[in-house]
Amino acid sequence: MTNRLPPENLTSALLTPRSVALVGASDDPTKTAGRPQQFLRKAGFQGRIYPINAKRATVQDTPAWPSLEALPEVPDQVFVMTPTESVLDVVGQCVKLGVPLVTVLASGFSESGPEGVERENALRKLVAESGTRLLGPSSLGVVQASSGLMLTANAAFAEPDVPAGRLFVASHSGSMLGALVSRGKARGVGFAGMVSVGSEVDLSIGEICESTLDNPSIDGYLLFIESLRHGAQLQSFAREAARRGKPVIAYKLGRSSAAAEMAATHTGAIAGEDDVADAFLKDLGIARVDQFETLLETLPLARRLPLATSGSPRKPLRVGVVTTTGGGSAMVVDQLGVRGIDVTPATPATLERLAAAGVTASPGRVLDLTLAGTRYDVMKAVLDVLLEAPEFDLIVSVVGSSARFQPNLAVQPLLDSAHHPRPLAAMLVPDAPGALAMLTSAGVPCFRSPETCADAIAAVAARRPLGTPAAPQPAPSVAPRPISEADAYGVLDALGVPHAPVMKVDLSAQAPALAFDFPLVAKVCSAEIPHKTEVGGVVLGIQDQTDLTAALQTLQKNLSERAPGIVCNEALIQPMVKGLAEVLIGYRVDPEAGPIVMLAAGGIWAEVARDRSIRLAPVSIETAREMVDEVRALATVRGLRGKPKGDLEALAAAVSALSQLAVRPEFGITEAEVNPMLVMPEGQGVMAVDALALK
Amino acid sequence: MTNRLPPENLTSALLTPRSVALVGASDDPTKTAGRPQQFLRKAGFQGRIYPINAKRATVQDTPAWPSLEALPEVPDQVFVMTPTESVLDVVGQCVKLGVPLVTVLASGFSESGPEGVERENALRKLVAESGTRLLGPSSLGVVQASSGLMLTANAAFAEPDVPAGRLFVASHSGSMLGALVSRGKARGVGFAGMVSVGSEVDLSIGEICESTLDNPSIDGYLLFIESLRHGAQLQSFAREAARRGKPVIAYKLGRSSAAAEMAATHTGAIAGEDDVADAFLKDLGIARVDQFETLLETLPLARRLPLATSGSPRKPLRVGVVTTTGGGSAMVVDQLGVRGIDVTPATPATLERLAAAGVTASPGRVLDLTLAGTRYDVMKAVLDVLLEAPEFDLIVSVVGSSARFQPNLAVQPLLDSAHHPRPLAAMLVPDAPGALAMLTSAGVPCFRSPETCADAIAAVAARRPLGTPAAPQPAPSVAPRPISEADAYGVLDALGVPHAPVMKVDLSAQAPALAFDFPLVAKVCSAEIPHKTEVGGVVLGIQDQTDLTAALQTLQKNLSERAPGIVCNEALIQPMVKGLAEVLIGYRVDPEAGPIVMLAAGGIWAEVARDRSIRLAPVSIETAREMVDEVRALATVRGLRGKPKGDLEALAAAVSALSQLAVRPEFGITEAEVNPMLVMPEGQGVMAVDALALK
Repeated sequence: MTNRLPPENLTSALLTPRSVALVGASDDPTKTAGRPQQFLRKAGFQGRIYPINAKRATVQDTPAWPSLEALPEVPDQVFVMTPTESVLDVVGQCVKLGVPLVTVLASGFSESGPEGVERENALRKLVAESGTRLLGPSSLGVVQASSGLMLTANAAFAEPDVPAGRLFVASHSGSMLGALVSRGKARGVGFAGMVSVGSEVDLSIGEICESTLDNPSIDGYLLFIESLRHGAQLQSFAREAARRGKPVIAYKLGRSSAAAEMAATHTGAIAGEDDVADAFLKDLGIARVDQFETLLETLPLARRLPLATSGSPRKPLRVGVVTTTGGGSAMVVDQLGVRGIDVTPATPATLERLAAAGVTASPGRVLDLTLAGTRYDVMKAVLDVLLEAPEFDLIVSVVGSSARFQPNLAVQPLLDSAHHPRPLAAMLVPDAPGALAMLTSAGVPCFRSPETCADAIAAVAARRPLGTPAAPQPAPSVAPRPISEADAYGVLDALGVPHAPVMKVDLSAQAPALAFDFPLVAKVCSAEIPHKTEVGGVVLGIQDQTDLTAALQTLQKNLSERAPGIVCNEALIQPMVKGLAEVLIGYRVDPEAGPIVMLAAGGIWAEVARDRSIRLAPVSIETAREMVDEVRALATVRGLRGKPKGDLEALAAAVSALSQLAVRPEFGITEAEVNPMLVMPEGQGVMAVDALALK
Repeated sequence: MTNRLPPENLTSALLTPRSVALVGASDDPTKTAGRPQQFLRKAGFQGRIYPINAKRATVQDTPAWPSLEALPEVPDQVFVMTPTESVLDVVGQCVKLGVPLVTVLASGFSESGPEGVERENALRKLVAESGTRLLGPSSLGVVQASSGLMLTANAAFAEPDVPAGRLFVASHSGSMLGALVSRGKARGVGFAGMVSVGSEVDLSIGEICESTLDNPSIDGYLLFIESLRHGAQLQSFAREAARRGKPVIAYKLGRSSAAAEMAATHTGAIAGEDDVADAFLKDLGIARVDQFETLLETLPLARRLPLATSGSPRKPLRVGVVTTTGGGSAMVVDQLGVRGIDVTPATPATLERLAAAGVTASPGRVLDLTLAGTRYDVMKAVLDVLLEAPEFDLIVSVVGSSARFQPNLAVQPLLDSAHHPRPLAAMLVPDAPGALAMLTSAGVPCFRSPETCADAIAAVAARRPLGTPAAPQPAPSVAPRPISEADAYGVLDALGVPHAPVMKVDLSAQAPALAFDFPLVAKVCSAEIPHKTEVGGVVLGIQDQTDLTAALQTLQKNLSERAPGIVCNEALIQPMVKGLAEVLIGYRVDPEAGPIVMLAAGGIWAEVARDRSIRLAPVSIETAREMVDEVRALATVRGLRGKPKGDLEALAAAVSALSQLAVRPEFGITEAEVNPMLVMPEGQGVMAVDALALK
């Protein structure tokens, strides 16, 4: 889709329109179609408001206009609140008038059966080649507190004092905006703008957010994502946001299959697999949180722990914990541990420096000062030492009851250390709204439950530095077709992915000359037969030339019986080889995430235990090593119980090599799978013994 | 330990003492040792308070006493706040005077090295045969708001208005009591009593809670557990609480290995495996929550969804969700799904009844009324239908922005349906303290985040009806010793656990007569050699009599070389058999949990994927079937991809049979392991091919 409106014009039409028209405006301010006008007025919107209602002379005491055409100017933004059936008409008028931005409230498009799909296609076509951009349908509107743009039908905005701040929110769900406002207010978090994107028929989360990147009043982005859609635009935005150091925090539904199914019914989109979306978000440096509250709590931490720059080696986040309450800190340690972050203990050198500062702390995973540490001077001295200690990237202070009763004892030292270059975060064990407000306004990342604290830290730590972008991909075929196994090996050869030696022979060959020893396997070779075993197209355990001739005859016979329509005269011969372990390496161009590469446990474990690691392709050898580390089944060849180790370095190299398809569009491969890839003993490499590729 | 004080006297000494002595009381009310006296006075404690301080005539304007002996009466409870070194002395005086209950604040016992362990042993011995019960050491004291008993050194209780209520709290961590009070206050939750149990040298969580079960002002129990300790007493309490329908909610640390290690350093106890503790809690009908906030939110739900009675078949909880906000309900559905609870859609019959009531709802997993449903009459009509629909056990209403702005629309219908026999819960999407308070005081289980909502529902659903209690177990040997494999098969025979046919032969036998066909396996058989392969004590693949004679000679030779000190003249012979899958069944008397039975994936998967299911032993066949369902690796023999099915019914029978060791103390077996147990094709049973038992 061409970006017809330059980003700066899009963002001003969206967030700072000089004039808005309300199509279908109701005189009753409590009705859905009456709310925006009432909200805009209450919020002190300074632009011009044009209620459009052919049946009335005034709407809520403002002169009403019979139609968009009748207006004295082309409004910057039009909010269409009329029923589904009239939407195409109204949007058509906007297109004709050259309205820069039109927002559609109604639902009833692709989520509503075949008729809705048709309506949505017509809507898309209507705006596609026009100068008008479309927000929605199913959009509850746009809010920007500082300019009083309360252009929304969401009843939650009846409360006029939307907290202004520096976070920009884009959400698939319009009702979530209200929840975020009220929770943000309770939490001292404010917003620079909020957009309900609806079903993204034209404008998507990615394009909307990207258009605001130059806005200096925005520090970071919160995304509420129902399912991954318009991935390319989201990717473009995330890469640019990362380049500018503006953190992006996301809550994405779909961890469970039930929610994925709901997202599909709710929006008409087909939800992809959650682990693909998860890899997509992390690879683009987006912090995906698991808890709803964390969405609001993570920005300060993400700002203090910037994303590592591309190409720099990834290191685990080293978190130090200091506390006066053993139980409280144990909850944080436990929650971090569950999320794979082991709290780092202080080194003997640090303990010595603490002793020199008059603080004796027993060695242990956390620095527990006990009740005796609930004093300003003790805590400040400890923070001074810890913030200089080289073993930590982040210090978390778990504050006990004093946070509520005597913030001067344990909270003041945090405030006084807030500007140290090393980041410091706080988790408050009691309910302590005062301390929370003080710390939040001082910019100290601050959490009110052990779960959100650990969730935010884990989400920020899981962001990955941006990798090489994929090349623009060839337009996908309607139904990609497999190439032959022999041709697939040719692609592997070109990429440097090792495979077992292979010979092509004629099915009618008698005792062909061989380049390798028995025993062998013989397989029919044809682009038409991707599932060879289903037609009896594989013979294993061929021991000698007589066997081989017989095997080729068997293959011929099976083909003529079970795949009579297919012309296939060739077979592949390979030596029978065995590895220490079998894995699957897959590559595909995902419709939303783009090119991805996957490493999975072989056999049933990929299915049963969902034991797999996914990244955006291409991946470097370092990233491929991380993927190897993430597949649990490979524990069998990591030296478990004295068993022989597998050549995992060669496996990482193969993963990285296959993933290069993402930057080699000349091959035209949209999907490739090596299954199984045999992992040989250390130093002996890996070996593909079957390969499938589609173009 | 004998229960020297009858429970009713224990609970009155603990919660309603007529007199308390404060040993080491400080005149400075801000000091730790000065706090209890100040707190008691502020809270209006009506009993007699005796500060003991030999150096002063008065303490905080109350006459001080030089010693416990000098008091005009024997106080009901003594709080010892003196340093560690003097604790034994003071407790000795309490014992001599016949004080019913003494609480020790100091730490420095078994968590503090060998000297501390010795000190703790002396303390235990001192009270063991006396009439005095001990709370602590490391106890921050006892609080009962309604009687003004604020007998604690916890600074959090400086705030005098501890919310009174009907929850009793017992916590390993004293500082958590303060956190619960402040969070309870913010949440409208009050307490009937709170006890910081410290390191449980005498009184444990179980015994303390059990002593209060007759107290009619207590509706339920909250436990903050660092690690499973005094399991037998906790079990006794939980069984009795379940019998009386008083719910027990627990938060237990140790999901991660780091936290388990911390609990060990913190208290000196060795933390057991978390999944054993988890099985223990669930099998005793305790709702274990995962999130700290949930601990305070779960009681109303647990009261509305009582524990199923023993022996009744377990059915999954059927949750229906109704909402006006798609995004909010999707979060709840997602969080429930992640925890294994799939939200139940309304049946066509229910949708018809809704239509008859004038509500058209699109079919789907949740009943989404959209914005149009934000009306009292719509929501009330829907609740009336759903609460009568037979397909649901629980209805969850996910309330959108109206919860905050117009509680009359969406909250009032909930209040008006609160007393329906079918339980109804609410999750509030916005921050809505008013609605929260209204619903809480009406007894409607109410949650302020999708995560705590799903956590509470899952915790309550995961409680299992109480099974048969184990028999009293034989005193464990200092070091239990293995019995021979042949004797272990004898135990399996007596229990009805199937194993491969087996013959005992002399190692010097020549061509012994055989009861089964070749190929065979031969294994040395001796109680002294539990790990046969380590001494070359197993020969596989014996094809004929010549092989067999040679194999027996090989075993003899290997034994003489690798286990020269051990006299062993016998071998076991078994046919070589192969199953569809291999699993491990284990039984052991856990030091805290008591007898447990485990079913685990065979081979490395038990280790790598921790793919195992644990229950308190004995288990019924129904429970054993649940265990079989929980082992993911068994998916391979459940008919995955058309593969043959295994005899999982026979496997369940074997698990149940082995677990009967818990009620057969006459065998004297403390640990037994069948590994591997072969799962044969459906109808062909299971077969143990190795067995180890210890007594």
